[in-house]
Order: sequence, then C-alpha cells, then structure tokens
Amino acid sequence: MPKISYATVRRLSRYFRSLDLAERRHITTLSSDELAKQNHLTAAQVRKDLSFFGAFGRRGLGYNVTDLKRNIGRILGLDKSWNVAVIGAGNIGRALINFDQFRSQGFIIKTVLDNDPSKVGMVIADLEVKDLKNLRGEIRSHGIDIAILCVPANAAQKVVDMLTASEIGVKAILNFAPVSLSVPDGVFIRNENMAIEIEALSFALTNPEAVR
Amino acid sequence: MPKISYATVRRLSRYFRSLDLAERRHITTLSSDELAKQNHLTAAQVRKDLSFFGAFGRRGLGYNVTDLKRNIGRILGLDKSWNVAVIGAGNIGRALINFDQFRSQGFIIKTVLDNDPSKVGMVIADLEVKDLKNLRGEIRSHGIDIAILCVPANAAQKVVDMLTASEIGVKAILNFAPVSLSVPDGVFIRNENMAIEIEALSFALTNPEAVR
Repeated sequence: MPKISYATVRRLSRYFRSLDLAERRHITTLSSDELAKQNHLTAAQVRKDLSFFGAFGRRGLGYNVTDLKRNIGRILGLDKSWNVAVIGAGNIGRALINFDQFRSQGFIIKTVLDNDPSKVGMVIADLEVKDLKNLRGEIRSHGIDIAILCVPANAAQKVVDMLTASEIGVKAILNFAPVSLSVPDGVFIRNENMAIEIEALSFALTNPEAVR
Repeated sequence: MPKISYATVRRLSRYFRSLDLAERRHITTLSSDELAKQNHLTAAQVRKDLSFFGAFGRRGLGYNVTDLKRNIGRILGLDKSWNVAVIGAGNIGRALINFDQFRSQGFIIKTVLDNDPSKVGMVIADLEVKDLKNLRGEIRSHGIDIAILCVPANAAQKVVDMLTASEIGVKAILNFAPVSLSVPDGVFIRNENMAIEIEALSFALTNPEAVR
C-alpha cells in the first residue's frame, strides 16, 4: 500500500458512512458522482481516493454498495474489534462512554480511569471508574489497543508518557485535550479538538465573502 | 479577502492555540519554523497561510506573539462574543455545555433545548433545558448566532429545517449528528464527527506501513 495522508483516511471514513446509510436504505449501487455529492467533493477525488486501494466498481455501473462498504471497512480496520481505554471520567469522557457509534463500529470501551478520588468507583454505563494508579494492569488485562485521552491540557503529556512507557506500550492515542503532545516513534496520535469546527463557523460569519 | 478553504481556517485555529500557549509562557516571538514544528507542518505552509491576510512578522525576526495572536483571533472572529444554542441535552450536549474552552474563546451557550419531556426543565451548568417547541422564541430572545446540533441522526435534518426556516433564520450550525445535512444557501454548516479520528487510528494500526 502507498503512503496515505490522514486527509484521505478521513474521506474514506465519510464514504464508509455514505455507503452504510445507502445500505440501510436498501440502495445497491452508488456512482462516484453520488458519493462525491453526498460528501461535497468531486467525483474525481472519490475515484482517486479509492484507486489507492485497488479497482472498485465498474465504469458506468457505479460501485456495489455492500462490496465497497466491506472493502473500505477492511481498509479502515472496522472489520475488527478494538479494545479502548478512556482516561479521564469528566464530561467528555462520560459522553464518549455513552457514545453508541464507537461500539457499533467496533471500538469497545473496556475500562475508564481517573486520578480523582471522587470519580474512582463511580459507575458509567456499566463501567466502574478505576484509579489511574492501576493503569498498567488495566491496559494489560484488557489488551487495550487505543487510549482516549480526556484529561485537562496540563496533565495530558504526563499521561501520554505513562501510556507509551515501554512497560505499558499503548500504540494509538486519541487526544481530546486542547494541547499538542509528543509521542515516541511508532505510536499514533490523533487530536480531536472540539473547538476547531466552531471557529470555522465564527470565521465564516465574520468573513462570509471569503468562504468557498 | 480571497476565498479561503476550511483546511486553511483549521490551521489558523491551530496557530492561534500555539500563540496562546506561547503567550501564557511569556514567549514574545515565534518563527514560522517554530509555529510549523508545533503543528507538524512546514514553515512554507505557515507563511503561505498567513500571507492571505497581509504581512505579519519581519523576515528573520519571527512573529510578535501577541500581535499575531490578536490578528488571527480577529480573522477567526474570536475577538467577538457569539451567542450559541445547544439543541439536544444528551451526553454530547451536556459535555459541550460544560466545555470551558467554548466560553473562554467567546462562544457563550445561552440556551439548551430538547424535545424529550424527561429532559425539559433539567438544569445543566445553570442553564434550564427548554422545550424545543419554544425554539423560535429562544433563538430570537438570545440573539443566537450559532446552533450546535446534538440530536440523533434521524432527527437532525428536521431540526436543521426548523433552525434555518425564515422566521428563525440561524446562519451557522455545528452538527454532531453522524449524518450529512442540507442547508439553504447562505447558511454555514460544519460537521463534527467524533468517530472520524478514532477510525484514523484503527487505519494506522491496521496499515502502519501506509501512514505518512
């Protein structure tokens, strides 16, 4: 497989959603035009993105919805199930634990940890919040693949250092803290910044003539 | 101002964060190299992005942190305060209402609405959840600029249609529902999909050799 940018991966996720929705509506084929339109892209972009992964669909016939969904799902690793730990049981952590879409796409939250004694022992959606002191044991016993970081910005790097230390060795981190974090080589980190998209709206309202 | 892509706007948001952090650390100048490095970009990209908005900084001297932060803040509309309505008082809605970063950047949540009788009347962070039936009055009396949609996917289009109807006329929507929505011309919508970034991680874990 060639090197793929995260921008392409994000578009694959969006195609997957379009195909999933089409499948639920019992639509059997979708053209690159339709996939493009639903995602505010060009058909050329859709075809280019999919071409990285082989030849899908036949010219003039469009894509078979079920086949393409299965293929993109496999590329994105959505045909597997992933064990997830949530670090930080504040509002965002709680929202994620209750976020059904994670589970339905194979991201199974197995454990929640916090260092706040008032939160340890709380039960959120059938999960008991564990003390962060037990991080190593929790990560190992649940075979955690991905950690979701929902801690305050000033604590985030310290928790990342704990998660990626060799005796724990988490390889993928989704960071909700509004701060840029360093990880060792071979560890994947993605930042989810909930304030970024609302700033795109204040930009648009401030400069409506500049919006494409 | 020329047409600006949302990708550029998102990078401006990230520069703003870097500058804010530098200011808190009493750093007075930052080079395009440093801004680039903190955001995993090239210095050329940083300079190009900033060049859309005029000449900032002086060759060899870097950018004055406070000036550039103020300028980018103005471009992003962060020098104003925006009245925000949250539609849907479920877990995501509640997390957002408690998300301090919105308020600190000038996005003030003025009202929360839901159509679930068990939620109407609840108080979340000093805001009483209002009945969605009162949408028009709430939007008008609070002068709402931006609506944040935290409703289930199958209800989202209907709520968007209500928000953008001429007698209500909301011009900017941040959508957390995992569905693509149609809005009338002149209405700005941005989609926040919390599952997209975790899929980038399952992609990376599945295809480590393909990650740039």
